[in-house]
Amino acid sequence: MSILVVGSVALDTVETPFGKVHEVLGGSAVYFAAAASLFTTVKLVAIVGTDFPLAELDFLRERGVDLSGLQVAPGRTFRWSGRYDYDLNTTHTLDTQLNVFADFHPRLPAGFAAAETLFLANIDPLLQYEVRQQARCVRLTMMDTMNFWIQGQRDQLTRMIRAVDIVTMNEAELRMYAGTGSLITAARRVQELGPRVVVIKQGEYGAVMFDQQGYYTVPAYPLEEVKDPTGAGDSFAGGFLGYLDACGEVTPRTLRQAMVLGSVVASFTVSEFSLTALRDLTPARVRERYEEFRHFTLVEPI
Amino acid sequence: MSILVVGSVALDTVETPFGKVHEVLGGSAVYFAAAASLFTTVKLVAIVGTDFPLAELDFLRERGVDLSGLQVAPGRTFRWSGRYDYDLNTTHTLDTQLNVFADFHPRLPAGFAAAETLFLANIDPLLQYEVRQQARCVRLTMMDTMNFWIQGQRDQLTRMIRAVDIVTMNEAELRMYAGTGSLITAARRVQELGPRVVVIKQGEYGAVMFDQQGYYTVPAYPLEEVKDPTGAGDSFAGGFLGYLDACGEVTPRTLRQAMVLGSVVASFTVSEFSLTALRDLTPARVRERYEEFRHFTLVEPI
Repeated sequence: MSILVVGSVALDTVETPFGKVHEVLGGSAVYFAAAASLFTTVKLVAIVGTDFPLAELDFLRERGVDLSGLQVAPGRTFRWSGRYDYDLNTTHTLDTQLNVFADFHPRLPAGFAAAETLFLANIDPLLQYEVRQQARCVRLTMMDTMNFWIQGQRDQLTRMIRAVDIVTMNEAELRMYAGTGSLITAARRVQELGPRVVVIKQGEYGAVMFDQQGYYTVPAYPLEEVKDPTGAGDSFAGGFLGYLDACGEVTPRTLRQAMVLGSVVASFTVSEFSLTALRDLTPARVRERYEEFRHFTLVEPI
Repeated sequence: MSILVVGSVALDTVETPFGKVHEVLGGSAVYFAAAASLFTTVKLVAIVGTDFPLAELDFLRERGVDLSGLQVAPGRTFRWSGRYDYDLNTTHTLDTQLNVFADFHPRLPAGFAAAETLFLANIDPLLQYEVRQQARCVRLTMMDTMNFWIQGQRDQLTRMIRAVDIVTMNEAELRMYAGTGSLITAARRVQELGPRVVVIKQGEYGAVMFDQQGYYTVPAYPLEEVKDPTGAGDSFAGGFLGYLDACGEVTPRTLRQAMVLGSVVASFTVSEFSLTALRDLTPARVRERYEEFRHFTLVEPI
């Protein structure tokens, strides 16, 4: 099995109460691939400029990520700059420079169209659609989005939502898209468009899932310090979908396991800046923390 | 076993996106007693004015709550007025009239001093201390507090915290008291003062507990509509401490069960205004929802 991911490869400048990093490796496709490659084979589609330090992606190649879909175009790499205050659940975007991303039209290399699983990271829903059309063998598709597209490209976004199996958004975005304060109502409205599963990210509170069986919840791992929340959602999605792809089947049981693995992987991501923690993460450490989740969530019989 | 609770009996005026109620039954001691009496015997200590409709408390008496510690004093009953917007986690207090509560000094009736368990609801820490001194047989004490006392009576509050076994606050209050954004650090600072257990309320996200074994988390029950969050924390405490009192022992296992029962009971509370849902709640319905919690939190082995 393998996963195709399309998203951004970026140079991030991030400031949090714990420090600041300047033009470090980031981007939704990178965080996703770093997480998913702990479980399965990943094929990455994205674009960078000629200024991008390609050696930064060597750790992905070493984990078997196929980077032949990474275009290097004349110009500068996509840059994002953001700040988090003590409320680490709120992102303050300071600057976004699309650069080479502005004219990006993803083209899948020959072998990529065979991927069975597809993750459409948070990019223009038109680009998401272009990729979905090219990925002919896909049997399981998950997509992310954000407030920018919900407000500016609502119709395109809805067309895309109708075409996927799993939608993930953070809770504020889901409420915005569905036009209701109730997460249950909002999730149902998305499911009525077609997706079987809605995964709602809640930052430091974890995540909840609505599938065809009902409701499922997973907390975040308790960390003394969350150093940098950047990439939490994308690495959650990578752990979640990477595991489902590796299992080869989507059942109530594998979906629940995938939710916990998503939260486990994200907990490593946010414990350091940029990709620092994900670079060194191993399946053994993931399994170890998974066991901790079993312990601190256990509802004893009464 | 029995629980002694001291707190407020109030007339609440509450407005939420789902409606408005005027001078209805409320108060921390009432919510706590309604919840705890599902599990054990409750003795209530509080004060009301001569304007208070005592028949409103008949349902507590029918559940075995001993109201002989309820003083009726000349004057008006404590009144609280608040509003919740779509963000139901934030309370906007519109008006607080202490009335007879202003000169309240709790006096325990003869039989009350024999209670083994004590809940000091969110009142002036000086009054909490007066009650703690009178309750000579108590073996387990839990206390709540709020930002008003953290800011205005910090030393008195700290003296009180040193004297109890279990502290509960909401997460903003705990962070304020401990002077740190990290819940783990904040909980440790409280535990260093003496309490073995810290229960942190997170509203729609549930609650977390730090005990001597470590960390435990319980989500909130998914409700399509939260009609009125008033009393959620006090009824959580009632379910939690009521169960512990009934068990007669505080172990890692009973603490975890108590956390879930707290969340179960609170989920009923917020589904209707005032005490409407708690009035009709039965142990059988609590057990039924407890089983649902087991299901939607289960972390499957991997």
